[in-house]
Amino acid sequence: MDKQMSETLVRTGPGTAMGDLMRRYWVPALLVSEIAEPDCPPVRVQILGEKLLAFRDTDGKAALVDEFCSHRGVSLYFGRNEESGIRCAYHGLKFDRDGKCVDVPSAPQACKHMGIKAYPCIERAGIVWAYLGPKDKQPAPPDVEWCSLPESHVYVSKRLQESNYLQAMEGGIDTSHVSYVHRYEVDDDPMHQGTEALKYIKADGNVIFETEKTPVGLTLFGRRNGDADTYYYRITQWLFPWYTLIPPFGEHALGGHVWVPIDDHSCWAWSINFRPDRPLTEQELADMKAGKGIHNEYEEGTWRTRANKDNDYLIDRQAQKEKRAYSGVFGFAAQDSSLQESMGPIQNHEAEKLLPTDRAIVMCRRMLYEAATNMQSDVEPPALDASAQRVRAAGVLLPKDQKPQDWARVHLDDGKDQPVYSV
Amino acid sequence: MDKQMSETLVRTGPGTAMGDLMRRYWVPALLVSEIAEPDCPPVRVQILGEKLLAFRDTDGKAALVDEFCSHRGVSLYFGRNEESGIRCAYHGLKFDRDGKCVDVPSAPQACKHMGIKAYPCIERAGIVWAYLGPKDKQPAPPDVEWCSLPESHVYVSKRLQESNYLQAMEGGIDTSHVSYVHRYEVDDDPMHQGTEALKYIKADGNVIFETEKTPVGLTLFGRRNGDADTYYYRITQWLFPWYTLIPPFGEHALGGHVWVPIDDHSCWAWSINFRPDRPLTEQELADMKAGKGIHNEYEEGTWRTRANKDNDYLIDRQAQKEKRAYSGVFGFAAQDSSLQESMGPIQNHEAEKLLPTDRAIVMCRRMLYEAATNMQSDVEPPALDASAQRVRAAGVLLPKDQKPQDWARVHLDDGKDQPVYSV
Amino acid sequence: MDKQMSETLVRTGPGTAMGDLMRRYWVPALLVSEIAEPDCPPVRVQILGEKLLAFRDTDGKAALVDEFCSHRGVSLYFGRNEESGIRCAYHGLKFDRDGKCVDVPSAPQACKHMGIKAYPCIERAGIVWAYLGPKDKQPAPPDVEWCSLPESHVYVSKRLQESNYLQAMEGGIDTSHVSYVHRYEVDDDPMHQGTEALKYIKADGNVIFETEKTPVGLTLFGRRNGDADTYYYRITQWLFPWYTLIPPFGEHALGGHVWVPIDDHSCWAWSINFRPDRPLTEQELADMKAGKGIHNEYEEGTWRTRANKDNDYLIDRQAQKEKRAYSGVFGFAAQDSSLQESMGPIQNHEAEKLLPTDRAIVMCRRMLYEAATNMQSDVEPPALDASAQRVRAAGVLLPKDQKPQDWARVHLDDGKDQPVYSV
Repeated sequence: MDKQMSETLVRTGPGTAMGDLMRRYWVPALLVSEIAEPDCPPVRVQILGEKLLAFRDTDGKAALVDEFCSHRGVSLYFGRNEESGIRCAYHGLKFDRDGKCVDVPSAPQACKHMGIKAYPCIERAGIVWAYLGPKDKQPAPPDVEWCSLPESHVYVSKRLQESNYLQAMEGGIDTSHVSYVHRYEVDDDPMHQGTEALKYIKADGNVIFETEKTPVGLTLFGRRNGDADTYYYRITQWLFPWYTLIPPFGEHALGGHVWVPIDDHSCWAWSINFRPDRPLTEQELADMKAGKGIHNEYEEGTWRTRANKDNDYLIDRQAQKEKRAYSGVFGFAAQDSSLQESMGPIQNHEAEKLLPTDRAIVMCRRMLYEAATNMQSDVEPPALDASAQRVRAAGVLLPKDQKPQDWARVHLDDGKDQPVYSV
Repeated sequence: MDKQMSETLVRTGPGTAMGDLMRRYWVPALLVSEIAEPDCPPVRVQILGEKLLAFRDTDGKAALVDEFCSHRGVSLYFGRNEESGIRCAYHGLKFDRDGKCVDVPSAPQACKHMGIKAYPCIERAGIVWAYLGPKDKQPAPPDVEWCSLPESHVYVSKRLQESNYLQAMEGGIDTSHVSYVHRYEVDDDPMHQGTEALKYIKADGNVIFETEKTPVGLTLFGRRNGDADTYYYRITQWLFPWYTLIPPFGEHALGGHVWVPIDDHSCWAWSINFRPDRPLTEQELADMKAGKGIHNEYEEGTWRTRANKDNDYLIDRQAQKEKRAYSGVFGFAAQDSSLQESMGPIQNHEAEKLLPTDRAIVMCRRMLYEAATNMQSDVEPPALDASAQRVRAAGVLLPKDQKPQDWARVHLDDGKDQPVYSV
Repeated sequence: MDKQMSETLVRTGPGTAMGDLMRRYWVPALLVSEIAEPDCPPVRVQILGEKLLAFRDTDGKAALVDEFCSHRGVSLYFGRNEESGIRCAYHGLKFDRDGKCVDVPSAPQACKHMGIKAYPCIERAGIVWAYLGPKDKQPAPPDVEWCSLPESHVYVSKRLQESNYLQAMEGGIDTSHVSYVHRYEVDDDPMHQGTEALKYIKADGNVIFETEKTPVGLTLFGRRNGDADTYYYRITQWLFPWYTLIPPFGEHALGGHVWVPIDDHSCWAWSINFRPDRPLTEQELADMKAGKGIHNEYEEGTWRTRANKDNDYLIDRQAQKEKRAYSGVFGFAAQDSSLQESMGPIQNHEAEKLLPTDRAIVMCRRMLYEAATNMQSDVEPPALDASAQRVRAAGVLLPKDQKPQDWARVHLDDGKDQPVYSV
């Protein structure tokens, strides 16, 4: 990937091509639980390079506005959230959830000039989503499967990664790394251990990947040897512009991620588990809250994993030697971030040497690049039709002569009405 | 304010227009108590972007010299302060309080080439002041009222603020913010609580400001409703280039600040309380030392307030909810710095939208800008006549038909011979 | 020294003139003990601006390779060092000690394109040395005296200094500073105290320096008054491009340093003690390990001295006052780094005012500059013949009419076959 294409993909601030593209989709902004109550304390939020403030107003509506007062540029974080708006602590200017200035105590007639930017918000799956794009282009709410399930069926967490979103998301697309850095973690993790899936995964480490473009992204087929007459396929999905979907292991929950730029050097890794067909069990929820599976143990007071850059990811060389941790780092999330952050805040794409297993990444980059550059020529972005997002990941054993693409087209095209396929 | 004017006002290093202007006045450099004894340890001092070293020599004279040795650039901070000079720890070069090199052990004849810069110092009001300007332009010592009082009548402290001096000083000029971020603090503070002043301040939050230019700066008149036939005026002063004066509350001390650039991203906020007519009481001194009123509780080992940027100013959302702290931050100083630092190290002046209550700030900016740019055309700066600094702040009830400007001209023009006006 | 010459000397990254010069010599890279065992954990190493990874392979051979995988740029630090190579934790690519890619699990045929850079390594005196220059120019192994002694005769330590290598090395060349910052340290140090040398050093602080070019660097003669008819000479050596040699005190070990750029803002200060004629005693080793003499007490988990920039070098003003520590800082290493780091990461050479005692520094700078710029015109660098490195430092009393240069030519030219001269 040359410098120009790399720069186009990694820059997402206001006015950039990728930034413009991403602003056409609903963006996960923060957890609903971060602004749980009406008139709760406001929360600083940075996404796509914009410094914003989230709060929940007296009516219980979520708001996402400019962090800074229009008057003198003071952070509204120190403001009072009460009586349907946030009041700046410096001179008392007050803004409602639409960014409208509703009070300038010293000069009421000035209100009409003092409004601040505000973005529409919706709440789905425990996430406050915001739309940062042009008003007349606002799409339908996100409709990936886990967005539409009852609250009891879904668990969502988020984590700060100190790298560009692209190299983080590419880790989510490229499942071949599971056989390496995550290899020993799967044996000890309650959401992976003891499943049939692991039997095939361990017996055949040399995955053959095939990739298929879909109207909303990419479907990836990872083939391993199955039983005598079968292949074992793990079928994953990448959806525009930042979703990845992960097949379940055995009876465990399905999974997914969203990879959202904070700025060009850090991103949110959202992690989701869900069952379309039943509530998550108490044990499952307890494990997820404890940071098992794709979720996180946190460094106190932050959204970083406890094992992080500043403590060398708590690398344990003895555990590495004894094959308890492939790289010496424990935890799926810390394993990914340790490697992806080691690439530098923005990977030097010009220096990389890609391999056949990177085909999905290459396709994803091209699709994003085309969508972003096309948009500069007024071509509408893909995947705005939320209903097309209703695809699913699956693990399945198929006869050797069956094309997994054919199977997927029938069984995964609208996840809602299908059983969960999990081997 | 456009970019050019903003840049002119915020840059104060050597060779800048504002830096040149400020160098024509005496600069508060450090507390006398920081170099209390002859031959005491030297202290690093940075002002107006210059890295300097303060020490007190064997004769008890304060010195402020270049921090770095002329020979190889080593910090004299590690030097030995003894026998009338500071000796560099690397090769023994020694400099006296005038920066004159008085010893080069290996090459005595080289002394005459090795001198370092040194600035004249005077001590007033517990502060070591330095003059950083051209030698032939040195003005008379500062003569603001609190500079000339007996030691017993004055208390001085300093605090590091992590922002440009301008946005800090503008907070000192703009008293309208007292009704917001400081609102609940006044009730609990021993230097404010239970005074008549608060009665008027609380009854009428919508202050009407008038501003008058003076030979040395600006006088601000903040009008609130008083009793049936009166207005309650709080009259504050801004003096070139960085002084602000605050009226007393009831029988408490008068107040003042000096706002001195350290570099373009930080400044010293000096805080002064004084009584022209009597010593401060033991209780008053105890309160000030404890950080009450405009003074500071410090983070250990630093000049920052204990509540600072790194601990999110110890924001207490419960106290904010319960109206014990307007913004959730406690302490006048931390309240100011939390807001002013949130503007960024240098406020983006181009983005601000000023209001009528900002008139005094606008005038102050213009006066500084004119003085700085005029000086580049050899026009002498204003307010060099120290005697003109003898103005005072006051709180006063006046009949509705009396012009406060007329009253001030008579009663505040030479603070020394007047009673303290404090309602 | 003008800007251009300064820039030439301080920049040592790939492609710079000084960097090209230094790459023609063997570079101390890390301690042998850091990669003590075959298949031990790899260690991050940065030298001359290059980020590298050291490991010891299954055959027990030391390796120094690019830190980052050729595939996606992930740090091999998280890799598995086993079965004769380091395997990247992300996708399992494996590299041997020569940087050759020996496994690409998903695409074995790609191996031949995936190699990474690797530098030849040798082990001498407890140090892993690497050669970073052109393959056809690799010189003979380093042969300074301490490199060729039995292990029992040598002790080596290293320390991180947060400054450019040049100002650090110049401290090693310029022994005149011993009389200042180190003055009181020598009395308490087991490797200095109670020796004859100190008697002369203390009696005459005004050292007269003479300097002589040698085929491999510079010899420095520091003359002090000796007994009635003698002068006391301390003779030190600087060898291309970064070695300094220190005379012993009394019966204590000889000393030396190597000053190796990490990047342009930090360097390794290697410290060596050795006896050509006998093993170091247990007491000597215990003292060195405890950080006495030129060695270091470390900040836990780092290679910085315990007294460092972040704790103001634990400066003790009382000890300074009482003449227990000249600058208030304890420890030779911390004393040097406190001063040399206070010059800034790169000393502003344009501002310095050199003195006669700086002659050796000036000569060293010129010799390095000439060698570096000559090399750009295809002139081979000096001192590539390792046997010419066999010089020694000495302390000696000579009759007043004897030229120390003559004495040195006879007695120090090949250290190996000479007694240790130490007064």
